Amino acid sequence: MSTLQYGFTDDGRTFTIDSPTAMPHASGFLWNRRMMVQATCRGFASAQFMQPEPAKYAHAPTLEARSFMQPEQPVYAHHPGRFCYVKDEDDGTLFSLPHEPVRASADAFAFVAQPDTLTWRIERDGLTFEWRLTLPVEDVAELWTLRVRNASGRTRRLSLYPYFPVGYMSWMNQSATWREDLGGIVCSSITPYQKVEDYFVQRDFMDRTVLLHANAPDAWDARQAAFEGEGGLHAPAAITDAELLGRRDADYEMPTAALQYRVVLADGDAHEERFVFGPARDDAQIHALRATYLVPGGFEAAAAAYAQYLSAGRGCVDIRTPDAWLDAFANHWLPRQVYYHGDVNRLTTDPQTRNLLQDHMGMAYLQPETARAAFLRALSQQAPGGAMPDGILLVDGAQLKYINQIPHTDHCVWLPVFLQAYLDETGDDALLDVPVADAEGHVASVAARVDRAMHWLLSARDARGLSYIAQGDWCDPMNMVGYKGRGVSGWLTLATAHALGLWAGIRARHAGDAEAEVFVQGARDCNDAANAHLWDGDWYARGITDDDVTFGVQRDTEGRIYLNPQSWAMLSGAADAGRREQLFAAVDSQLVSPYGVAMLDPPYTGMRDDVGRLTQKFPGSAENGSVYNHAAAFYLHALYEVGDADRAWRVLRAMLPGPDADDLLQRGQLPVFVPNYYRGDWRGHPRTAGRSSQLFNTGTAAWLYRCLIEGLFGLRGEGDALRIAPQLPSHWSEASVVRRFRGAEIELHARRVAGVSTARVFVDGQGLDAPLLRGIVAGARYRVDVELPQ
Amino acid sequence: MSTLQYGFTDDGRTFTIDSPTAMPHASGFLWNRRMMVQATCRGFASAQFMQPEPAKYAHAPTLEARSFMQPEQPVYAHHPGRFCYVKDEDDGTLFSLPHEPVRASADAFAFVAQPDTLTWRIERDGLTFEWRLTLPVEDVAELWTLRVRNASGRTRRLSLYPYFPVGYMSWMNQSATWREDLGGIVCSSITPYQKVEDYFVQRDFMDRTVLLHANAPDAWDARQAAFEGEGGLHAPAAITDAELLGRRDADYEMPTAALQYRVVLADGDAHEERFVFGPARDDAQIHALRATYLVPGGFEAAAAAYAQYLSAGRGCVDIRTPDAWLDAFANHWLPRQVYYHGDVNRLTTDPQTRNLLQDHMGMAYLQPETARAAFLRALSQQAPGGAMPDGILLVDGAQLKYINQIPHTDHCVWLPVFLQAYLDETGDDALLDVPVADAEGHVASVAARVDRAMHWLLSARDARGLSYIAQGDWCDPMNMVGYKGRGVSGWLTLATAHALGLWAGIRARHAGDAEAEVFVQGARDCNDAANAHLWDGDWYARGITDDDVTFGVQRDTEGRIYLNPQSWAMLSGAADAGRREQLFAAVDSQLVSPYGVAMLDPPYTGMRDDVGRLTQKFPGSAENGSVYNHAAAFYLHALYEVGDADRAWRVLRAMLPGPDADDLLQRGQLPVFVPNYYRGDWRGHPRTAGRSSQLFNTGTAAWLYRCLIEGLFGLRGEGDALRIAPQLPSHWSEASVVRRFRGAEIELHARRVAGVSTARVFVDGQGLDAPLLRGIVAGARYRVDVELPQ
Repeated sequence: MSTLQYGFTDDGRTFTIDSPTAMPHASGFLWNRRMMVQATCRGFASAQFMQPEPAKYAHAPTLEARSFMQPEQPVYAHHPGRFCYVKDEDDGTLFSLPHEPVRASADAFAFVAQPDTLTWRIERDGLTFEWRLTLPVEDVAELWTLRVRNASGRTRRLSLYPYFPVGYMSWMNQSATWREDLGGIVCSSITPYQKVEDYFVQRDFMDRTVLLHANAPDAWDARQAAFEGEGGLHAPAAITDAELLGRRDADYEMPTAALQYRVVLADGDAHEERFVFGPARDDAQIHALRATYLVPGGFEAAAAAYAQYLSAGRGCVDIRTPDAWLDAFANHWLPRQVYYHGDVNRLTTDPQTRNLLQDHMGMAYLQPETARAAFLRALSQQAPGGAMPDGILLVDGAQLKYINQIPHTDHCVWLPVFLQAYLDETGDDALLDVPVADAEGHVASVAARVDRAMHWLLSARDARGLSYIAQGDWCDPMNMVGYKGRGVSGWLTLATAHALGLWAGIRARHAGDAEAEVFVQGARDCNDAANAHLWDGDWYARGITDDDVTFGVQRDTEGRIYLNPQSWAMLSGAADAGRREQLFAAVDSQLVSPYGVAMLDPPYTGMRDDVGRLTQKFPGSAENGSVYNHAAAFYLHALYEVGDADRAWRVLRAMLPGPDADDLLQRGQLPVFVPNYYRGDWRGHPRTAGRSSQLFNTGTAAWLYRCLIEGLFGLRGEGDALRIAPQLPSHWSEASVVRRFRGAEIELHARRVAGVSTARVFVDGQGLDAPLLRGIVAGARYRVDVELPQ
Repeated sequence: MSTLQYGFTDDGRTFTIDSPTAMPHASGFLWNRRMMVQATCRGFASAQFMQPEPAKYAHAPTLEARSFMQPEQPVYAHHPGRFCYVKDEDDGTLFSLPHEPVRASADAFAFVAQPDTLTWRIERDGLTFEWRLTLPVEDVAELWTLRVRNASGRTRRLSLYPYFPVGYMSWMNQSATWREDLGGIVCSSITPYQKVEDYFVQRDFMDRTVLLHANAPDAWDARQAAFEGEGGLHAPAAITDAELLGRRDADYEMPTAALQYRVVLADGDAHEERFVFGPARDDAQIHALRATYLVPGGFEAAAAAYAQYLSAGRGCVDIRTPDAWLDAFANHWLPRQVYYHGDVNRLTTDPQTRNLLQDHMGMAYLQPETARAAFLRALSQQAPGGAMPDGILLVDGAQLKYINQIPHTDHCVWLPVFLQAYLDETGDDALLDVPVADAEGHVASVAARVDRAMHWLLSARDARGLSYIAQGDWCDPMNMVGYKGRGVSGWLTLATAHALGLWAGIRARHAGDAEAEVFVQGARDCNDAANAHLWDGDWYARGITDDDVTFGVQRDTEGRIYLNPQSWAMLSGAADAGRREQLFAAVDSQLVSPYGVAMLDPPYTGMRDDVGRLTQKFPGSAENGSVYNHAAAFYLHALYEVGDADRAWRVLRAMLPGPDADDLLQRGQLPVFVPNYYRGDWRGHPRTAGRSSQLFNTGTAAWLYRCLIEGLFGLRGEGDALRIAPQLPSHWSEASVVRRFRGAEIELHARRVAGVSTARVFVDGQGLDAPLLRGIVAGARYRVDVELPQ
C-alpha cells in the first residue's frame, strides 16, 4: 500500500523518510548540555533549556502551563516551529520549508535524522533546498543553515523568508524589533511573577529570544499579527500582499521573527544563509553568540565540538546481526539516548530517584565515572533512617516538583540494581568503601548506606511481609492502593527480594557471607510472602489494597494481569521453573501484542477507587494497558536472566519500529529512539494501537542497552572476568560484536554450528572450559568465537 | 478614511458594527450565575464556569496555565471559538460564520451586541445568515441559533457545518464521539492531577464537553486532526474532500465537535437549527440539557428567564443628555457591568477585599440588599486585630490565590468608602448595629468592627504618620516599595485620611461627635503627615521607599507624577484650594491624554528595584502609564466632589470609546463595557495608545456609575433627603434623568437659563431654599427642575 521511501544508510547513522504527511509526528531530537529540541518532519518544534529550571524561548500563542514532559503532545497551526517561506518573485508561487505552514506538496522531500543534525531536503520546481539544524555543546542556541540551489535550467528570482514564531512571551511585557547593531530580531519579555521573592530568582533570566543572521536581510517583520494579516499562516499577508516585509515592531503585541532575502539565482547557482535562534539575557550575550557562530567557520567549529561531545557518549558495543535496523539502532541511536539521559539527566533539576539510578545504570556502559558520581550524589541525599528521597536535587535551590511531591516507596530498590550493573561493568568494588556525607554531615560508607537502605526496605513491610506502597511505587499513578497506609505492592515485594538478593551477593563478595546473611534471609522472606499471598494460580497479583482486596488477579475483569510482578518474580527467584512456565503462558496469551508486551490487561475503562489514577487514563494510553517499554524492558531482562532467548528476542524487537512500512506508519515514529510507550489495547482500539508516545525520556533506554550487551550478546562482567554467553534468537545463524570492556576490545563472533549441543567458547582460537574470559588487559584485543547449537 | 458602519439603536440596547476586520478584537460578553463567555466579532470566544473554581469546557490546543483573567489576550488560528462553515454544494464555495476560520469576505456583516444576546448577521451571495448566542440563568450552557434564508432568486443546495473546537482537554484521558441517544457530540476527559487529595475535589467535575442539536445532522466528525486534514482550519479536508463528514471518533486524540446539515432552500425559504454547547458531568445532565432547551419553546423560555434575571440588575437612573452614546451606555450597559461584578463577584471564589467592597458599592445602586450581604460577609472575615484579609472567601474550601497571597495594606480603607455610598443610597443606618461574628465566633457590631479597622489603619503607620505599604496597596505591582517593612504609601496615607473622615461623619451621625473625634483627629494627622512629607511643590508624591527615597516627584525622570495621590488629596481634604489648582495644572499637562487620564507619567522603561513589578511592565500597558480607568474614576469622583464639572466631563467621556470612528478603531472596543485600561504612553507609543485591554473586570464600573448618579446628575442621598446638585458640563444646555431612590421616582430636568447666577431647584414647581428633597415617599413620583447658569 505505502509508497513511503525510508531507511537507514549503511553506516546506520542516518535515517531518512520521504513524506511529511504519511508520518506527521515523526521527529528527531538534539540536545546539548543546557537544552533540548525535538523537531517534527513537518517543521514543528519543542525546545527547552535550563535556567536552572526548564524554560522556553519559543512559546505557544497562549499562556502555557508548566509541566513535566508529556507524551503525545498535540500540534496545531500556531505551534512553535522553524520555517522558511519561499516566494517565486516571477509567478508569485508560495510554499514553505519544510512543510508547514503552507503545506504545499514538494517534488521530493526528505527528513533526515543524524545523531548531530536534523536536515530537511525539499525539491520543488527545479529548486533544491536544504534546511538544517545543529546545536553547539554549551550554549543555548539553535544553528540553522538554509541552502538553495537552482537546477531548473533558468534564472530564478526568489524571496526567502525564514520565519521563527516566538509566541506569547509574557503578559507583563513583550516586544520585538530588528536590531541592526546586533544583527537580528530581538524579542524581549519579562517572565511574569507576583511574589517579591520570585523577582530575585528571575531577574537574570534569559528573557529575550533572538533570531540572528549572518547576512543582513532585505526586510523583516517582528509583529505576528501584522505578519499574518488576514492571510493567515498558510498565506501571510506580509508576504502575499507586499514586495517587502513591513519592518514592523511589536509593542506589547505578540512578537515574531521573520526575515526576507531576495536572491537571484542563475541556473546552477546556489545560495546559503545561516541563523542562530535562541534565548539571551542582554546585548552582551547576543554579541557573544554572533562572535562565536556567525563568523566564518563558526558553525563548522561548533559542529566539530558537538561531534566531540557526542563521541564521549559512544557505546561499548558495535554489533553486526542479520537485522540491519537493530544494528543501526544499537550502534548509534540507543547509546545516544542513554547518553542524553545520563549526561544531562533528562534536563531536570530533580530527577526521580529511580530514574536517576536507572539512567546511570545505562551510563555505566558509556561513562562509568559519570555514573559513579551520580550514584554518590544520590546516596548523599539518603534520609537518616535509610530511605531514599523521591527525587535527587541536582542544583542549589532546586525543589521536588510534580510527582516527586507524592510519597513513593521503591527508591531504595534501585541502589543494588544500579550497583550490580556498575560493578559488573567496572569491577570498581572500591566504590563500596567510599565515605558519603549526608545533608546533616553524617558520614558513612557506600556499603553501610546501602545496608541501611535495605534495612529500610525490610522494615517497610506489613505483618505478612509484604511491602507497603504508600501513594505509588515504580508505577506513579497507582496512587490509591495504599494511600491509607495499609495497601501493599506485589511488584515492590518482589523487587525488594531481588534487590536484597543482589545486595547479598555484592556484600558477600565485599565483606563475606556473614555480612550478607541478613539480606539473603530477607530476600527469602519476601519471596515467601509473595508466594504465600500473591500467587493467584497462574500469575502473581499486582498488590493488595488498603481494604485488603487483592488485585491483578483472575477474578478482575479489568487489570487482570500486570506484567511487572511476573518479571520480577523471575528476577527475585520467587517463581520456580514451573511457575515460570505458567507466567509465560499467561503473558503470551494476555499481554503480548503486535507492538510489544502490554503493562497490564485488560485496560481499565473507568476509575477504580482502590487502585487510583492509572485506572482513569485512556485505555491503551500511558500506563493503562499501553506497551510501556520500561516495563517491557524489565521483562526482557528477566527473560535473558532465565535464558529464554527467543521469547526475549520478540520482546526486544518490538521496541523498535519498522522496518516494515505498515509498522512504521502505525507507530508514527522514526527508529532513532525508543519511546516511553506505544499505545496498547490493540484489541479494544486497533486503529491507534502501536502509536508512539514520541517521548524519549524513559528508563527503557538503559535497560534495553544492558539487555543487548549482557543478554543478547551475553557479554557481562563478573568479578575480574567477562562472562561470555550470547543468547541469539534461534533463527539467527550468526552475529558478531565488538565489545569495549575495561579498556580492552573483545571481538566476538557467534555462529550456529552443526553438531554442537552446548555453546563452546574460543578465545583467540583456544577453547575455554568455562565461558569466562579472565586476565583481561587494558589495551588488548581479544578474538572470541562462540559456537552455538543449531 | 473609515467606511465603518456602527452605532447604537435609538433605545441604546443594541450596538452594531459592520466589519470583522476593522476591529478584530471587538467583543461582547454574556454571563449568568455560573459562567461567562466573551466572544469577538470574528467568532473567537473565551468562556469560563465555576465548579467552584473557574474552569473551561472549550480549551486551547495546548496545555493551558490557570491564571487570573488577563488583559489583551492574543488569539490565533486554533483559539477556541464558535463557527459554522458553509459549503455551496453546487459550486463548492466555502466560507464560514461569522468570519473565522475561513476569513472570506461577506457582502454584508453585522456584529450585534445586546445585553442578553450576541448576534452575527452575514450576507453572502444572496444568502442571509444569523448566528446567535444567548445564555440561560443557572445552567452552564451556550444556546446557539443558526438561521439561513435564501434570497438569491434560485434554489440553493448547502451544507452547514457548525464547528465548535474543544481543544486539548486532558493528557490523562480525552475522547469524543457522536451519541445518537443523547443527540450530539460528547467529548470526554479527566481533569488531570497527581495528588490523591485532588481526586476527591475533582471527581464530580463536569469533565465532558457537549454539542447538542435539536435536529439530527446528516454527518459529524469528532476528531480534530482528521477534520482538518492537510487542508487546515481555513479549508478543512473533511469538508473540501468529501461529501459527508467522516463520522470519526477521537480516541485519546484531540476532540472536536463538527456537524453537517445538508439543506435545500428554494428562493425565499429559511431554515433554523439550534444547539447547546457546554460542559456536563454525565448522561443525566446531558439529558436534562436536552429536555430543558432543545424542546419546542426551550430557547424562548430561557430567553424570558434571562431577561428577568437581567432586569433584576436594572440601574437606578435613565438619563437623557446631548450625548446619545453616553445615554445608551449609562442606561443599559454600565449598570449591566456593575451587576455582573456584584451579582457573580467577577466569577471568582476569593475576590480581593477592595474589589468586593467597591463592586458592591456599585451594587448599592442596583440591589442594596445584595450589597449589604456582601459587606457583612466581608466584615465577618476581619482579623481579630482589625485588619481586613487580602481576599474574601465566598465558598467553602476556597483559598486565597494569585495576588491575594501577597500582603497589601489598604483593605480597611474600603469599608467606610462602601458604607458612605451604601448609606447615602439606602438610609439603612441600622446596618451599623448589626452583630457580626468572625471565624472564631467573636461577635461585634458593624460599627465596632469598622472602628477596629480604622484603628488598625491608624496603627499601621510609621513614626512620621505615613501608612506602611508592605507589598502593595491598591496598586498590586507596586510590590517593592515597602517589602522590607519600612516603605510607605503616599496614596494610602491620603486614602486613610479620607476613610477616617468618612467614618467620622458616619459615626458622628450614628453615635455622636464624641465617638467620632478620634477619627476626625486621625484624618487630620494623616493629612498633616502627607502635607509635611509628600507635597513636592506642585503635587503629592506616590510614596517613600524602604530606603527612604521619595518617589513620584519632580526629580524622577520616569514615574514623575502619579494620579492617585492627587485624587485622594482632594477627597481627604489634604489639598487646599491653592494646591488643588497646582494639582490640576500638573495632571492636565502631564497625565491627560487623548484617551483619558494616565495613572502615572512618564511610564517606566525598565525595572526600578525600589518600586517593583509595576516598573517592569511594558510602557503604556496595564498600570505602567496606562489610562487605568479605575484610577481615572477616583479622579473623576474627586473632581465632582470639588465641583469641577467641565474637567470631570472630559475624564468621564474618555472612558467610553467613540462615537468618533477613529477613536473607536484606535481603541478597538465596542462601547458596551468600560475596560480596566486603555493603553497609555500616547507620546512614546502613539500607534498603540488608546487600545482597549478588552477586560471588563474592573472597579471602574462601580465608580463610574456612582459618578454619573451623584456627580454628573448630582442626585445623592443625604440622611433622609436627596441632595440635588447636577454638574452638567458647560456646553450642555440641558439634560434629564429619571432617578429611582428609596422606592420613589424623581424625574429631573436640568437646563441652563439666562440670568440665573446660581442653580435653582424646583420640586413639582415649588422652589427649594436648599437643594434637598425631603420627605420622600416610596411609590411617589417627583418632578424636579433645575435651572443652571449659562
